[in-house]
Amino acid sequence: MIRFDSDYVSHAHPRILTRLQETSGEQNQGYGEDVHCDRAKAYIRTACAAPDADVHFLVGGTQANTTLISAILRPHQGVISANTGHIACHETGAIESTGHKVLEVPGIAGKITPLLIRKVYDDHWADAAHEHLVQPALVYISHPTENGTVYTLPELEAISAICREKGLPLMLDGARLGYGLAASGTEVTLPDLARLCDVFYIGGTKLGTLFGEAVVICNPQYKQDFRYLIKRHGGLLAKGFLLGIQFECLFEDGLYFDLGQHGVSEAMRIRKAVLDAGLPLQYDTSANQQFPRVPDALARELAKEFAFLSWEKPNETETVLRFCTSWATRSEDVDALIGALRRG
Amino acid sequence: MIRFDSDYVSHAHPRILTRLQETSGEQNQGYGEDVHCDRAKAYIRTACAAPDADVHFLVGGTQANTTLISAILRPHQGVISANTGHIACHETGAIESTGHKVLEVPGIAGKITPLLIRKVYDDHWADAAHEHLVQPALVYISHPTENGTVYTLPELEAISAICREKGLPLMLDGARLGYGLAASGTEVTLPDLARLCDVFYIGGTKLGTLFGEAVVICNPQYKQDFRYLIKRHGGLLAKGFLLGIQFECLFEDGLYFDLGQHGVSEAMRIRKAVLDAGLPLQYDTSANQQFPRVPDALARELAKEFAFLSWEKPNETETVLRFCTSWATRSEDVDALIGALRRG
Amino acid sequence: MIRFDSDYVSHAHPRILTRLQETSGEQNQGYGEDVHCDRAKAYIRTACAAPDADVHFLVGGTQANTTLISAILRPHQGVISANTGHIACHETGAIESTGHKVLEVPGIAGKITPLLIRKVYDDHWADAAHEHLVQPALVYISHPTENGTVYTLPELEAISAICREKGLPLMLDGARLGYGLAASGTEVTLPDLARLCDVFYIGGTKLGTLFGEAVVICNPQYKQDFRYLIKRHGGLLAKGFLLGIQFECLFEDGLYFDLGQHGVSEAMRIRKAVLDAGLPLQYDTSANQQFPRVPDALARELAKEFAFLSWEKPNETETVLRFCTSWATRSEDVDALIGALRRG
Amino acid sequence: MIRFDSDYVSHAHPRILTRLQETSGEQNQGYGEDVHCDRAKAYIRTACAAPDADVHFLVGGTQANTTLISAILRPHQGVISANTGHIACHETGAIESTGHKVLEVPGIAGKITPLLIRKVYDDHWADAAHEHLVQPALVYISHPTENGTVYTLPELEAISAICREKGLPLMLDGARLGYGLAASGTEVTLPDLARLCDVFYIGGTKLGTLFGEAVVICNPQYKQDFRYLIKRHGGLLAKGFLLGIQFECLFEDGLYFDLGQHGVSEAMRIRKAVLDAGLPLQYDTSANQQFPRVPDALARELAKEFAFLSWEKPNETETVLRFCTSWATRSEDVDALIGALRRG
Repeated sequence: MIRFDSDYVSHAHPRILTRLQETSGEQNQGYGEDVHCDRAKAYIRTACAAPDADVHFLVGGTQANTTLISAILRPHQGVISANTGHIACHETGAIESTGHKVLEVPGIAGKITPLLIRKVYDDHWADAAHEHLVQPALVYISHPTENGTVYTLPELEAISAICREKGLPLMLDGARLGYGLAASGTEVTLPDLARLCDVFYIGGTKLGTLFGEAVVICNPQYKQDFRYLIKRHGGLLAKGFLLGIQFECLFEDGLYFDLGQHGVSEAMRIRKAVLDAGLPLQYDTSANQQFPRVPDALARELAKEFAFLSWEKPNETETVLRFCTSWATRSEDVDALIGALRRG
Repeated sequence: MIRFDSDYVSHAHPRILTRLQETSGEQNQGYGEDVHCDRAKAYIRTACAAPDADVHFLVGGTQANTTLISAILRPHQGVISANTGHIACHETGAIESTGHKVLEVPGIAGKITPLLIRKVYDDHWADAAHEHLVQPALVYISHPTENGTVYTLPELEAISAICREKGLPLMLDGARLGYGLAASGTEVTLPDLARLCDVFYIGGTKLGTLFGEAVVICNPQYKQDFRYLIKRHGGLLAKGFLLGIQFECLFEDGLYFDLGQHGVSEAMRIRKAVLDAGLPLQYDTSANQQFPRVPDALARELAKEFAFLSWEKPNETETVLRFCTSWATRSEDVDALIGALRRG
Repeated sequence: MIRFDSDYVSHAHPRILTRLQETSGEQNQGYGEDVHCDRAKAYIRTACAAPDADVHFLVGGTQANTTLISAILRPHQGVISANTGHIACHETGAIESTGHKVLEVPGIAGKITPLLIRKVYDDHWADAAHEHLVQPALVYISHPTENGTVYTLPELEAISAICREKGLPLMLDGARLGYGLAASGTEVTLPDLARLCDVFYIGGTKLGTLFGEAVVICNPQYKQDFRYLIKRHGGLLAKGFLLGIQFECLFEDGLYFDLGQHGVSEAMRIRKAVLDAGLPLQYDTSANQQFPRVPDALARELAKEFAFLSWEKPNETETVLRFCTSWATRSEDVDALIGALRRG
Repeated sequence: MIRFDSDYVSHAHPRILTRLQETSGEQNQGYGEDVHCDRAKAYIRTACAAPDADVHFLVGGTQANTTLISAILRPHQGVISANTGHIACHETGAIESTGHKVLEVPGIAGKITPLLIRKVYDDHWADAAHEHLVQPALVYISHPTENGTVYTLPELEAISAICREKGLPLMLDGARLGYGLAASGTEVTLPDLARLCDVFYIGGTKLGTLFGEAVVICNPQYKQDFRYLIKRHGGLLAKGFLLGIQFECLFEDGLYFDLGQHGVSEAMRIRKAVLDAGLPLQYDTSANQQFPRVPDALARELAKEFAFLSWEKPNETETVLRFCTSWATRSEDVDALIGALRRG
């Protein structure tokens, strides 16, 4: 079985595994207060052109989302998200567990727009009984989105502008950020994110590490006491230096960007094969997820050899599949998939 | 200004005020452990033909909803509600404050259907990753709904049947229940509710009391330790006997049903006047709320003399208004409104 | 049975009941946005010499405590309280329900001291691992305390001073405040509270109203969006005007202070009778609660005629009893108790 | 600097690092649904002689505690713990973040007794107002405790017996369990834990893994939907197979027990050196933590060469230090410490 079902089926990039081996004789202080974390933070600040940002390493994405959102909101406030956003539908209510409502808006292929944000904001404040409603106070986006799409720089700038106009902080979930940075059709860079977002995170789990997400807090208002909040949510890894070592390795010489590029290149080969086979793409994506709509018979045929997700069932005879590549995807595996698509 | 903006603009029914006066020389034990509460509970059990039900008195509806829902659900579970349900949109995230997600379905004029419930349930369990989703584990309906509509007995029986088939407890918000019981086009009675629901409550605030909602727990599974949960949510009124006295008065000789009938009768007069004036009704309601769609000019004219809510703005030139009657509505006030509608 | 078991066994002061009767023909806007609330707020601001304070009316004390504490604290912060404080032991974990730990210190007859506050604060920040501990960020006191004791003005000033030095807001639970203001041995006034506390509340439930606590927010930092938080915690009474009417009545001409004085006077008569009978007082109290330590035989004898609480069992042969007077205590009932104490 | 400040300063045991390397070419399903997790669970069930137990792998201890406690308790219930317990004082209120109060009892060198449990239980239910109190509904112990002490088998059996008598589930925090199993003076085994506890966990982070705690649910009542709760608390590691691989390695041939033995042996050498130097031990411990009470001058001298914790300051001239050994402690480092203690 060749796995395209997710981008977390493989351990870690060989250089990271080697580095863990090389450093295994060390003794380091716990809870992220070690030299590796310090160096990794410095690399990330540089990569983001954000010398004053705070950087924290957490183990996973749900943790990062929950900790950030509950750090920013007051109890009666909620977070605006696409209804397809990870926090809206794939975290078993982790955001609600901190008391906050996810204010869902209909995403457009996973993306939200300034208009949608403005509407939620204006509707709230126009309501005479607004004190009876959850107050919108944060905007959550992901890049790439759960539908594989990416924001263009103008789109992101427009979202940031409406957020600042309305006093809504902007948070970006970058679980797959490396693939978004490498995607064609978008010029968004890390410094853009640091400039346009209040907080965001750089995903490692899906981009070469065993685990780990690097949270970047750009807005000084949200820096205070953040380590308390990580600990409270069970996210302060005892051996935090393991996170430092891995992110050091990713960012000391640009490995992170190379890994993203690899995942995207392989995804683009799948994309081309899908289109060449005359199959439609449900979402027009340029990052590491491809969503062909295929006849059910073909879906069954492909399932004999490949693992993938059945994403949606738009009609009686077709299924939308999700193929996910990653930093670890082997070209020969993609070749096999291309062959199977050609055979139809 | 004649008020039709809500059903909680008046104190309490004269008989209740008199009874409070008459009993004012008494000394009673606190926290609802007094003879008045005992008697009121007995009357309510009888009215519901539910001799084994537990009855508790809480101050308000948001409290009742929050306490019941958090008593029933485990942390990872959510409650299915129409997107127009009170818990979904008018309680400032009180349900989320207890950690639970409201799983919204598109209501049909405020009502939900067995089909909608089945879909949420089946979609959840059909998802291979269902452990990443909030588990649907309770169904919330209101009767009358926030849109003034009511369930027929067959509708309610069908909802109860699907809930029992799927193991989902059914909860009914009866903040306006007295008007629902008096509504034409539905034969639902208190014994029906006790038979078909796991828990429900009988609203007093909108039906003649100063405040107070009588929670009825029919399913023995949800009885244990409920008073702890009331206290924890700040709902255990120190002078609980005030609730007992008021509900005693409502249920000792059927006053509750008379009050509901009065509110509905006056609402029906408004309904007839609206239709006579050739104005459409946005929702087809038979309880105490009427939602005429009127030209904006008429809305402005009416606003000079009457208080009401602007409910929706369906188009550029019209507004849907909400007129709310109650046990306290004076016939001469309705006459005035009818006159104004006639003048157009 | 003559009741001295609590100060919430009676309805409301006759003037309040009459006022409710007199205003019963009115129609008022809901949720506390009515003229009665406006007037009551103005009276309270004047009584507190705090023209800029925000005043809100809530139904009960647990609600007031929960709403205030969760409004002030960030998620990782806790509230310092005497271990005998109401929030520490008599609210079924309502504070914890909002995610906050009560940081208990050993109270001295229910009171805390600047030294205790300083120690909690210093211990926290001196700990190298303080991010693993709940951060102390609020001080909660009650006046009178649950043990019936009161703070002197110098004591309260010293507590306020350490709180301001350390950046800890100070909150005062005034469920029995009227009796504290009337107590001998303390000169604390409402303007003192407004000057020394960040937030406090003036209890009505135990001082002449059917229900209701008036929250006073002195520190502008805690004013924003407070009505959202009241609603979220189920505390926004639909018929908020009932609270306004009652507090108007209490504060328009000083009734509140008279009621407190009455409760204290009757308590002082009990105190004298206890001491005359040669019985010790467990706590030296000057407000409306008296705690004689009596032989068990006497306790059993008294229980035939009087309701009171058995507070503590300090040894095999004696029990500490609590007798509670109130605005409603009848002198003849106190006479009867005095007689019984004399008989021994 | 030689580190004795904690038992999580080193990466992972060489065999585990090698195993991670060896398996790095694999593709595995995510979220713990892989063959490694399956095998590791089977090994652990066998080691515990608990063929029906459910086993789950979480990343860290705070996560394990929070997830378990919030899975077991209803909202109004609390967990009994020594006041020195990790959940009581070193998790930044993680338990309170789920709404539950930690009911602290004074630990005896970190341990609690049947008498303490009985007292909390009986006091609660004897209180006429118990519905105003948090209901004790779970007992939390750790083995070894935070003070390095261990329970004997008879002690643990007595605690389990009182818990079962009172209907209180028993939970054991085994973050350092391997050292407890190897400690002298206690015969407690994994099968004993499975027999006596309702839930417990086997710590990996401090015993040879990079991270990871194996939760064992013995009581079927607490098994349902546990994976939802892990996800909700951010504990469902995407690459769950990494946990499986590590625990497989620990339990396939008894490595876990060897690692515990090594840590304890080195600790015993420190213990002997302390006593030989005529220094008292603050706690009488037989596991991997030693707490000598030393003159401040000696503490300062030792700090030049060794990292350790300053645990308590019992008087003006002495400090209690904590020295922590682990599976990774080098004998030559212990030799160096012994030398330093000898020199005094």
